[in-house]
Amino acid sequence: MSFEKLDQLGRRLEALEHAMSILGADEATHMAVGGGEKRAEAMSNLAGLYHRQATAPEVADWLDAAEGESLDEDQSAALREFRRQHTNMTCLPPEFVERQTSARMRSEQLWRSLRAQNDWTSFEPALEGVVQLVREEAQLRAEALGLAPYDALMEQYDPGNRVADITPVFAELKAFLVDFVPEALAVQEERLTKTPLKPLSGVYPTERQRELGLAMMQAVGFDLTRGSLSVSHHPFCGGVPTDVRITTRYKQNEFLSALMGVLHETGHALYEQNLPADWSHWPSGKARGMSVHESQSLFVEKQLGRNPAFWHWALPEVEKHLGEAWTIDEILPHVHHVQRGLIRVDADEVTYPLHVILRYELEQELVTGRLEVADLTEAWDAKMQAYLGLSTIDNPADGPMQDVHWPSGAFGYFPSYTLGAMMAAQQWAALIKAHGSADEDIAKGDFEAVNEWRRDKIWSQGSRWSTPELMEKATGEKLDARYFAAHLKARYGRP
Amino acid sequence: MSFEKLDQLGRRLEALEHAMSILGADEATHMAVGGGEKRAEAMSNLAGLYHRQATAPEVADWLDAAEGESLDEDQSAALREFRRQHTNMTCLPPEFVERQTSARMRSEQLWRSLRAQNDWTSFEPALEGVVQLVREEAQLRAEALGLAPYDALMEQYDPGNRVADITPVFAELKAFLVDFVPEALAVQEERLTKTPLKPLSGVYPTERQRELGLAMMQAVGFDLTRGSLSVSHHPFCGGVPTDVRITTRYKQNEFLSALMGVLHETGHALYEQNLPADWSHWPSGKARGMSVHESQSLFVEKQLGRNPAFWHWALPEVEKHLGEAWTIDEILPHVHHVQRGLIRVDADEVTYPLHVILRYELEQELVTGRLEVADLTEAWDAKMQAYLGLSTIDNPADGPMQDVHWPSGAFGYFPSYTLGAMMAAQQWAALIKAHGSADEDIAKGDFEAVNEWRRDKIWSQGSRWSTPELMEKATGEKLDARYFAAHLKARYGRP
Repeated sequence: MSFEKLDQLGRRLEALEHAMSILGADEATHMAVGGGEKRAEAMSNLAGLYHRQATAPEVADWLDAAEGESLDEDQSAALREFRRQHTNMTCLPPEFVERQTSARMRSEQLWRSLRAQNDWTSFEPALEGVVQLVREEAQLRAEALGLAPYDALMEQYDPGNRVADITPVFAELKAFLVDFVPEALAVQEERLTKTPLKPLSGVYPTERQRELGLAMMQAVGFDLTRGSLSVSHHPFCGGVPTDVRITTRYKQNEFLSALMGVLHETGHALYEQNLPADWSHWPSGKARGMSVHESQSLFVEKQLGRNPAFWHWALPEVEKHLGEAWTIDEILPHVHHVQRGLIRVDADEVTYPLHVILRYELEQELVTGRLEVADLTEAWDAKMQAYLGLSTIDNPADGPMQDVHWPSGAFGYFPSYTLGAMMAAQQWAALIKAHGSADEDIAKGDFEAVNEWRRDKIWSQGSRWSTPELMEKATGEKLDARYFAAHLKARYGRP
Repeated sequence: MSFEKLDQLGRRLEALEHAMSILGADEATHMAVGGGEKRAEAMSNLAGLYHRQATAPEVADWLDAAEGESLDEDQSAALREFRRQHTNMTCLPPEFVERQTSARMRSEQLWRSLRAQNDWTSFEPALEGVVQLVREEAQLRAEALGLAPYDALMEQYDPGNRVADITPVFAELKAFLVDFVPEALAVQEERLTKTPLKPLSGVYPTERQRELGLAMMQAVGFDLTRGSLSVSHHPFCGGVPTDVRITTRYKQNEFLSALMGVLHETGHALYEQNLPADWSHWPSGKARGMSVHESQSLFVEKQLGRNPAFWHWALPEVEKHLGEAWTIDEILPHVHHVQRGLIRVDADEVTYPLHVILRYELEQELVTGRLEVADLTEAWDAKMQAYLGLSTIDNPADGPMQDVHWPSGAFGYFPSYTLGAMMAAQQWAALIKAHGSADEDIAKGDFEAVNEWRRDKIWSQGSRWSTPELMEKATGEKLDARYFAAHLKARYGRP
């Protein structure tokens, strides 16, 4: 039976994925500094082995044959994903992949040094080369998948996401935010004028912050027998579902950034830890994609972790571990701080989507050729002024040079962040419909019912459905910007 | 060119080795407890991938063709080792390997529970099965390699080691030790009667012991930019040459066992860190084998770390890190303690070889069929009485059940331990001939000249030569038991 051969291939690929995931996490946490070069060589060889195994000529025959076999529902879902993975992996000719890989690597290396020097002019030709190749890539993917070019790029990260569905949702959100950001800032200013911010004490030893983070992770549902928390320069969630490695970084003078980072990564981790274990070697047993993954991390960070109810339970934990007493009214202004800024990764949940929508619009124009890299700094600045009232024209390092995505050739990825935020808000709304007492549960530190809903609707589904199908099955509706807008209004708007 | 294809194969195999080595070290140090099952599955799949790559039908053709190509000296050495590795990996039919793997796994699992219950009778049939398969294996290897059966087993661990060379050396050593052990014990007793042992204070915080270990590692030559020290239940040296992971375990009430463990593993690590980097993807660029590796760990632990000269330099370090002052005369009785015991892994350098020679003799008889498992406990006891004056007849858990080697089917490995100890003593003697001032260097904490000699003679040679060739080139002579005997006499005998 050919499906059986795909099943065995899945086990071999899972072993290689396991190796690459653990090696990746290890690199950022425990590797000796001098081990980097050989590690990179090993990773690239393992990726090559993975690719050769996954795209070996016989795999296409197995797929064709399996599609004629009588399979149960789980197997059929697995086969669909095996096919999808195979199409996505084979649609670029090896010659193209080689050209692209070397252009991306050169551009990313250049970017690292030139961003630090705020030197857009020297970087421009490298980015032009990458964009040229992305246009080719989009065309090749589009032909293989029967999709529009930018849709074909997004398909790598979020199967089923289409410009035709996303653009109207983003347009609605953008229209809302352009008005709402000033409102949220005004509300904040009025509040701070009335009650000044209580400053943090500024003395938070790492070991105590770590204990607090571990307590929170566990309370929220992280299984510490199948994962761990350590330190790295950039927080991440890596490893494998049976051994999820999350990291954070600590500042001695404040505890919220590390804690919120831990909650965010815990959200990713819960998804991984609760995927269907029996399908772990099938593509259908993996997490669905970038936007769903981000919806899970943002659910824990924003819907739970920045929810006032959460802090009823969390403040005694903070006091226990850090020896510092806070009231809800004192802590929330820190947790809900809103600020217009140039840098996406530093943005709060109110302003963040505007950073993303700006990129979503610009990268589509770059891919279609309506925009050239030569005009990117002006185009960026114009949108930055329109959406957030800020200018970056003299400061490209904090403009189109701020993210690694474009220099490394990742186009079609940015929308995932804000789609995730909207999905998390919509999931929360659906959950509240089913469990009206979720806020009371959370205020008691009881995350059972919340997690039960998520396990049932999201985690246990793996990649059985496309991204929009999964959302519709989970929440009963297509993605709708109103849930996220309502969430922001309730939390940051005029009472 | 076919050699080029072997070279590329070497890079793919190096990547898989890299993955398995780091995953192995990670498993013992950082893996979540629940990650074990999937890790085992991944490791077994990676080992399968490695085996399939290394033994693919075309590899035999490449070897044949490369042997007709014009190669330089380094390439010729690599090709010899590619051939040796290939022969060793292909000489057992897959059907046999499967039968043997399952028998070994069953026997090793049984052993874990039955050893704890001291239940030899229930374990006997499983070991009989393993021995039966080892006899088959030895026969298959012997035919493929044109060697005697036990030589063919040893060949896996130490290429070139032969019973005809080792037995006379072991016989000489055994004859010496049977008389010398009582002498060393008497000398020790006289000394302790005159000057009682100064007890350890018993308060050695882990963090301070770790700092001391790191200081010692670095002083002795460990490159901390290409390796690290952590904690595991059983100390080991793992990882890859560019990122060597060594571990120890700490007792709060004494510091010598952790420190000596660190020095031992540092010896292994120095070998790995100083292998020829350009050949890291060729079999000729790897460490030579088990006995040479053990000679390097024992060199650092015994020739350096238990050398009185070493403690002239080390005691101020101990005082600095542990806050405890010792004189040489006070510390050496701890460092040189001799005791007859039943357990090999707890034995000191004087009694240890008798444990090994006993096993070397018995496992040859088991492999040839002159001894059956049914008679093993008596045979073990008879030798234990003859060599060390101890009996284990009522205590098989501390007799033939004490080691994992036989239950897991590893026959031909034991001699490596004592060969390594003898080689280390002979290397030290050769080094002293070249650098008469080595002791003075060491007393100053200067390991430059010592390491220079070892880098030149051992580390940089990789697997260019067979084990006996390497020893002869390094020391100018074949392995000779007199160096080790002289070393023991000087350190433990009557002045």
